[in-house]
Amino acid sequence: MISDNLTVSENGELLFVGRSTVELLAKYGSPLYVMDEARIRARMRQYAEAMRAAFGESALPLYASKACSFKEIYRIASAEGIGVDVVSAGEIFTAHSAGFPMEKAYFHGNNKTDEEIRLAMEVGVGYFVVDSIDELNAVDEAAAQAGITQKILLRITPGIDTHTYEAVNTGKVDSKFGNAIETGQAANITARAMEKPHLALMGFHCHVGSQVFDSDTFFRSADIMLAFIADMKKQYGFVTRELDLGGGYGVRYTENDPTIDLADNIRQVGEHLRASCAALALEMPAVRLEPGRSIVADAGLTLYTVGTVKHIPGYKTYVTVDGGMGDNPRFALYGSAYTVLCANKMTQAADMVCDVVGKYCESGDIVQPAVSLPSSVCRSDILAVTTTGAYNYSMASNYNRIPRLPIVLLTADGGEKVVVRRETLDDLVQYDL
Amino acid sequence: MISDNLTVSENGELLFVGRSTVELLAKYGSPLYVMDEARIRARMRQYAEAMRAAFGESALPLYASKACSFKEIYRIASAEGIGVDVVSAGEIFTAHSAGFPMEKAYFHGNNKTDEEIRLAMEVGVGYFVVDSIDELNAVDEAAAQAGITQKILLRITPGIDTHTYEAVNTGKVDSKFGNAIETGQAANITARAMEKPHLALMGFHCHVGSQVFDSDTFFRSADIMLAFIADMKKQYGFVTRELDLGGGYGVRYTENDPTIDLADNIRQVGEHLRASCAALALEMPAVRLEPGRSIVADAGLTLYTVGTVKHIPGYKTYVTVDGGMGDNPRFALYGSAYTVLCANKMTQAADMVCDVVGKYCESGDIVQPAVSLPSSVCRSDILAVTTTGAYNYSMASNYNRIPRLPIVLLTADGGEKVVVRRETLDDLVQYDL
Repeated sequence: MISDNLTVSENGELLFVGRSTVELLAKYGSPLYVMDEARIRARMRQYAEAMRAAFGESALPLYASKACSFKEIYRIASAEGIGVDVVSAGEIFTAHSAGFPMEKAYFHGNNKTDEEIRLAMEVGVGYFVVDSIDELNAVDEAAAQAGITQKILLRITPGIDTHTYEAVNTGKVDSKFGNAIETGQAANITARAMEKPHLALMGFHCHVGSQVFDSDTFFRSADIMLAFIADMKKQYGFVTRELDLGGGYGVRYTENDPTIDLADNIRQVGEHLRASCAALALEMPAVRLEPGRSIVADAGLTLYTVGTVKHIPGYKTYVTVDGGMGDNPRFALYGSAYTVLCANKMTQAADMVCDVVGKYCESGDIVQPAVSLPSSVCRSDILAVTTTGAYNYSMASNYNRIPRLPIVLLTADGGEKVVVRRETLDDLVQYDL
Repeated sequence: MISDNLTVSENGELLFVGRSTVELLAKYGSPLYVMDEARIRARMRQYAEAMRAAFGESALPLYASKACSFKEIYRIASAEGIGVDVVSAGEIFTAHSAGFPMEKAYFHGNNKTDEEIRLAMEVGVGYFVVDSIDELNAVDEAAAQAGITQKILLRITPGIDTHTYEAVNTGKVDSKFGNAIETGQAANITARAMEKPHLALMGFHCHVGSQVFDSDTFFRSADIMLAFIADMKKQYGFVTRELDLGGGYGVRYTENDPTIDLADNIRQVGEHLRASCAALALEMPAVRLEPGRSIVADAGLTLYTVGTVKHIPGYKTYVTVDGGMGDNPRFALYGSAYTVLCANKMTQAADMVCDVVGKYCESGDIVQPAVSLPSSVCRSDILAVTTTGAYNYSMASNYNRIPRLPIVLLTADGGEKVVVRRETLDDLVQYDL
């Protein structure tokens, strides 16, 4: 199985965290997101422990909550003692409403509005990750008005092409994010940040892309960042306290994706960083990593019900489910691969190749092409799409005015809890006047 | 200008329907969708009148409401006396709540759930456009239980490649939609529909793609459909009462897109259809067209505020606005072209090429690349993206937990009215438990 929280029962049902997906769907309705709390907590702990071992006690993982943001996940992050990365007033408001200790929140984004900046200061967001000179000025002014000194990091563009796909490749110089070292803009914003009376510059952030499967990328970005840090020390006498290397290791969407030894990879980055700091005569900064996807992706599963099976002789077979690009737009956006299983027929041979498609009125609404399923698949069967914990709920829309799905959390103590309720038809029209 | 509801004031402000976009933004907040009621009504009338002239009094346009669905637009369609195409329980519920006469609603979609089928019958949806054998059985059973005879059309796949882009190309045989003539499946479902005791088969529907700029596509699909209709008459004695040729003519996103004489194009399709019917000794069926995009696209405009301007020497300039892929995912999905204007600097030369990007934490969050704007553009300036009335609000998400935009309707009587209110931070967490 693609992830070890998936197993098969004796009667051929897919089990998620040991629980029958068929029964979950019957109980909570279709379609449905299910999440595995123990897995989320285990991943948070894995990052926290590995980072402490590799970088020292000051190290802290920040859960990149844009991957999946709802109140309960901030409660879990809070209980696990890790920080969070937030990117909007909405994420800040959600975290704060859930009682998250906001001093451990890092506010990201390439265009923070004045309203968002004010809200973030009001609720005591610990760090702003400042993306541009325009924003540096705006945050300084807002801090002056609020009568506070705001801790900030600066987002630096190391200029690395990670060879991941374009849409998540954010470390190269030609990016809407950050300040490039190569062009002198990183040094310039550092000098200007040091002069701001209401800002406390704590260090630097970079992010070179998601779905990273090797530590080599982190070695290279760390090297570039440490050389920059040494340069800032030499040029301006600036001592970097925090270095945020961004997110995150890759996850397995299909059997073709490699598995990763998280602890070992982080240990290697730690060794590399210590050696480089020693060579440059730098004190080791407090390290941050921002895993999002790799915390929640394989903790999530989507369950659908089959509506129609259409064999087009000489062409293809289409199996249609009761969801699609509204609850998971990632195939439409990026052509993302996913693993699809027939949850109530797991012991039958997957002897039929078909396209699994959604119910949205658009040809591009494909859940996954060329999937192998049992040829007996028919209306009322249940399909499970695995590894949907990241960027499914968070990217969901009401396209075609279809209500968004609930999230049922399979709790670490063996229980179940609805953490996001299903949208109703009344909810859909609540904004219409 | 790209559309004639856009003009420029003496002080260099962009006017939409004669009203200052700068004042609209100041009054209703940023970002903002604005819509032009007079344009929507004019397009609905244009279709209705041209279709009556071309096809006779029985012809009716159906507004494809997935392009933009909210209560007020169904009230407008109702007042204009046209029908609507709905694709989900949500669209049906919205139309019904708005008082739309549901006998003029056509229920589309490749996977209608049992729940949706029941709701549609409860509120008296006029027609089901049945997409598959699975659905034919389900609709017949539901009609039996409801004690009604349900009028239906069958969705037929004519097998035309419209040379539009893949995602909106739905008329070819290898499609999740419909029943192909070529494979015999169209004839088969016709025979089975005629036998169903609780269904009244009224005719056929086909849809060969959106953004069609010539009537040639309609000639070809009409010819294929009429040949099929003649065949069904010969084989089964079935008399087709209604022929629904789907949607819709193209719209102008940029100056490169052609303009269309709607009335003349529809007149040509009418002539072609009459001639073909005569040649095949068929009575002229009642014709339906399903324009969505071409009713609302250029009736819509999105207004944003600039947050940052980032010049990266040797690379590019990025201008960031306070919206993006959450309120308009079409560039991320399809690379769609749009026209972008600096609404408060319309008389300044557009002498700077830049990428206009959004505030979402994703490199793919691009509003439009290679846009020409005045080089003076800076934080607080206002950008307008034109032709956003279709598939912007309807596809909007809360990605990054960013609230969705309101729609302000500039009414036909010269007033203004909020028809969809802005989401608040409290709204965002209302489903979180």
